Amino acid sequence: MSARLTVWAPGGFPEVRPGDDLATLVGDVLAADAAASGDAPAEGDVVVVTSKVVSKAEGRVVLAADRERAITDETVRVVATRERPGGLPPLRIVENRLGLVMAAAGVDASNTPEGTVLLLPEDPDASARALRAALRSRFGLDRLGVVLTDTAGRPWRDGLVDIAIGAAGVAVVDDLRGGFDAHGRPISVTVTAVVDEVAAASELVRGKTAGRPVAVVRGVGRFVLAGDGPSGDGPGARTLVRPSADDLFREGSAEAYARGLADAQGLADGAESGRG
Amino acid sequence: MSARLTVWAPGGFPEVRPGDDLATLVGDVLAADAAASGDAPAEGDVVVVTSKVVSKAEGRVVLAADRERAITDETVRVVATRERPGGLPPLRIVENRLGLVMAAAGVDASNTPEGTVLLLPEDPDASARALRAALRSRFGLDRLGVVLTDTAGRPWRDGLVDIAIGAAGVAVVDDLRGGFDAHGRPISVTVTAVVDEVAAASELVRGKTAGRPVAVVRGVGRFVLAGDGPSGDGPGARTLVRPSADDLFREGSAEAYARGLADAQGLADGAESGRG
Repeated sequence: MSARLTVWAPGGFPEVRPGDDLATLVGDVLAADAAASGDAPAEGDVVVVTSKVVSKAEGRVVLAADRERAITDETVRVVATRERPGGLPPLRIVENRLGLVMAAAGVDASNTPEGTVLLLPEDPDASARALRAALRSRFGLDRLGVVLTDTAGRPWRDGLVDIAIGAAGVAVVDDLRGGFDAHGRPISVTVTAVVDEVAAASELVRGKTAGRPVAVVRGVGRFVLAGDGPSGDGPGARTLVRPSADDLFREGSAEAYARGLADAQGLADGAESGRG
Repeated sequence: MSARLTVWAPGGFPEVRPGDDLATLVGDVLAADAAASGDAPAEGDVVVVTSKVVSKAEGRVVLAADRERAITDETVRVVATRERPGGLPPLRIVENRLGLVMAAAGVDASNTPEGTVLLLPEDPDASARALRAALRSRFGLDRLGVVLTDTAGRPWRDGLVDIAIGAAGVAVVDDLRGGFDAHGRPISVTVTAVVDEVAAASELVRGKTAGRPVAVVRGVGRFVLAGDGPSGDGPGARTLVRPSADDLFREGSAEAYARGLADAQGLADGAESGRG
């Protein structure tokens, strides 16, 4: 018997404006799609929403002229920088308020009204929880997941992939530690980032230009949680952030190298002045 | 109208042994599944296969006792290391022969016969091309893609995701540079790593323990190529590897820092000896 995953992304999503009730917009589009296609959200489904429309609804819009300052404001820690040609300000890869390491702190200029840029939602896990509560109620469902996505680069590989920056009602990871492989040997290190794979799968359907910010993912019900409150909402996508202290790549190579040079210089100066 | 993606993974895949004709095994399982479910591979589909069964068929098996030496042999460049407790050898994150930066060079001990570990395929893009040719012929299809996957960790985020390490008949990236967003502004930096998202989507269906090494992805036909030869096979997954010279994270933070310290010491020693 086949295992099966289905992802669909309804069209017809309206432009989102600050103050819009996103749960109502998402619910309306899903309901209209269900009326047309018969595919209503069901128990065990995950509703995936790009964080861009969450930011718009939450009014996380700033003037493009203030982009560099916005990046600075969103930055907790600069991880790496790269000079850019043509008088552009340097590319800054930073850890932002949400713990995410992203170029430009996740501040985004695509698909935003002219002259503006978008900040990431204030608290994407909280936004996901609110959306989950509203959609569970509207569609009369218990086991429903919500994932909020953003598009991110990564070291070592070209190209961007969508990741989960907010989650509610989903187990976030498939923790196989303690399980056994097909040869009966313990699986010791495989912890799959399920919500990141859900985000990636949904991007293949939503795309970047087609005005489809919402997708429904069916077939991952084993990761979808029931009930409300903390046990139903689950751990949230923030738990996927690796603490920088545990991260072998917490700092860009050039930055770390320069810090090593500078520290050696400081030690040498200290020794000099100690000698003097 | 909804955009739609469907992924399915037939069960019943046999254990793969060195020398097995993988294209026949994959074709047999897809044909049996089609007979049972009616879902035969069709124009525009992508067949995703975990590289693990490719390695097994290609005989890329070594004794577990030789694991550390195998990692060394697969290593082109050590990127970062971390000590491990309990007398275990250090974790080595390295760039391997394929350009992939991976823990243990991608040498894998899960789902392998007792006492053995698996190396990655010799040339996953070539393996994908061979599989594509065989499956196009068997199913009488023109536009068919093949993606070979592996499971990888990443900086900054916990949990593993599947990525594409081999590809044939797929455009690899969705290059939106030159396109326009919904506000008519040029999209300047969005290059989506389509095959990595296909790999991630397939993992949600294949899983790690269920004996489903093959999945079919339907709904990404706009990225699937027609014909044989280089234009039909496309660029291959190797093109997603970012050259280390362009990579801001080409070296672990601790390693880069230590190199800075050492270089400063070398400079100081040079200055000393120059002075003397």
